[in-house]
Amino acid sequence: MGSPDFESLRQRIKTFAAERDWDQFHDPKNLVMALVGEVGELTEIFQWLTPPEAANAMSDPARAEAIRDELADVFYYLLRLCDVLDVDLPVALQAKLTKNEARYPVEKSRGNAKKYTEFTS
Amino acid sequence: MGSPDFESLRQRIKTFAAERDWDQFHDPKNLVMALVGEVGELTEIFQWLTPPEAANAMSDPARAEAIRDELADVFYYLLRLCDVLDVDLPVALQAKLTKNEARYPVEKSRGNAKKYTEFTS
Amino acid sequence: MGSPDFESLRQRIKTFAAERDWDQFHDPKNLVMALVGEVGELTEIFQWLTPPEAANAMSDPARAEAIRDELADVFYYLLRLCDVLDVDLPVALQAKLTKNEARYPVEKSRGNAKKYTEFTS
Amino acid sequence: MGSPDFESLRQRIKTFAAERDWDQFHDPKNLVMALVGEVGELTEIFQWLTPPEAANAMSDPARAEAIRDELADVFYYLLRLCDVLDVDLPVALQAKLTKNEARYPVEKSRGNAKKYTEFTS
Repeated sequence: MGSPDFESLRQRIKTFAAERDWDQFHDPKNLVMALVGEVGELTEIFQWLTPPEAANAMSDPARAEAIRDELADVFYYLLRLCDVLDVDLPVALQAKLTKNEARYPVEKSRGNAKKYTEFTS
Repeated sequence: MGSPDFESLRQRIKTFAAERDWDQFHDPKNLVMALVGEVGELTEIFQWLTPPEAANAMSDPARAEAIRDELADVFYYLLRLCDVLDVDLPVALQAKLTKNEARYPVEKSRGNAKKYTEFTS
Repeated sequence: MGSPDFESLRQRIKTFAAERDWDQFHDPKNLVMALVGEVGELTEIFQWLTPPEAANAMSDPARAEAIRDELADVFYYLLRLCDVLDVDLPVALQAKLTKNEARYPVEKSRGNAKKYTEFTS
Repeated sequence: MGSPDFESLRQRIKTFAAERDWDQFHDPKNLVMALVGEVGELTEIFQWLTPPEAANAMSDPARAEAIRDELADVFYYLLRLCDVLDVDLPVALQAKLTKNEARYPVEKSRGNAKKYTEFTS
């Protein structure tokens, strides 16, 4: 059993919500807020760790499972939001990467922490 | 040109960062913070919209592009974080969905707003 | 017993952390992440509520207490962060309000949803 | 001119919004989302800094002003939200601190990173 592709995940999530009649809660503002909540839970796992502890976070099995679960929750709501907004997420990322490759030419951007803003602005 | 798969996106993102020597910034805590920043920017697009305006957000071309860009940025940092933590995101989501299907049986969960907590706890 | 002022809250919080030897965890990045976590928990309370339910959220005593607790947690980390960064929060807000009063003249800003960005940019 | 107190800040903010007829946007869900956006902007300032750079973040005057502005924006929306929900923020914090002083006795909590969850759960 290999790694599932986008389309099968999107479908499974859509079915999961539809079977429970949860579509009524899944409007864009609510889903953005749910995404915020899950990112908050992910953040709480890392907040008091030192950088070396954070780099080694997956070595503890219980914590590793908690991290995988939170990453999955973030992705779940991101995919639901894309479904509701009719956005093809992999295509959107591909388009953004093409923009950013033009915006941050390799020569000018290399190791540049000062001007480093990447996707943030 | 079809929709890219996970593996090709993960690789392209990894190369994007490596070519610019940005791996040095991409430790787990920093990437979680970057994810927070992008979710914040996505939230700002929706914060003052009424629910009907939000449901119709993609009808304005400029706003639609801004939304696709922010969704892409969120996904970018989510994939980078998974890469750094060595988490297979689609597999993690699949595992979480299996857990949640057991946790929220269809009959007991249907349309239940009161007990509705879904992935949040 | 009246409402405490800023200085007494700041001092009580500082003492609370110092007595538990938690200052070691309270560097700016960690405190920003803790603030994110608390804002996430606050968001989770409101995420599935309709706007009328949200407007009426304090009518349920258990939920009202949960909301007051989360608002307090957000404020706690905001004050800790200001303490660590040596920022006088009420003075900073006063200065920002003065900027924004100039930036958003009453006549041009009245009820303007389209251009309404307020503090966000 | 000293530091303003809570009540004068709350009043000034309330007037600021009312004069611009922005109350219509300030329902609880929207204000929570605006708070998320501002915390996101604050996070972006710190995300790529090393811990020593973050500890020294206020030494750069332009960055110090940006940080003060974002802290003020977070506080602005936190106070607006409390006003709309009719929560007395300093009283709520005082009550939460009393709870937490009982929950985290000094002797058991001292320097305890492992069990350290503080306000997060």
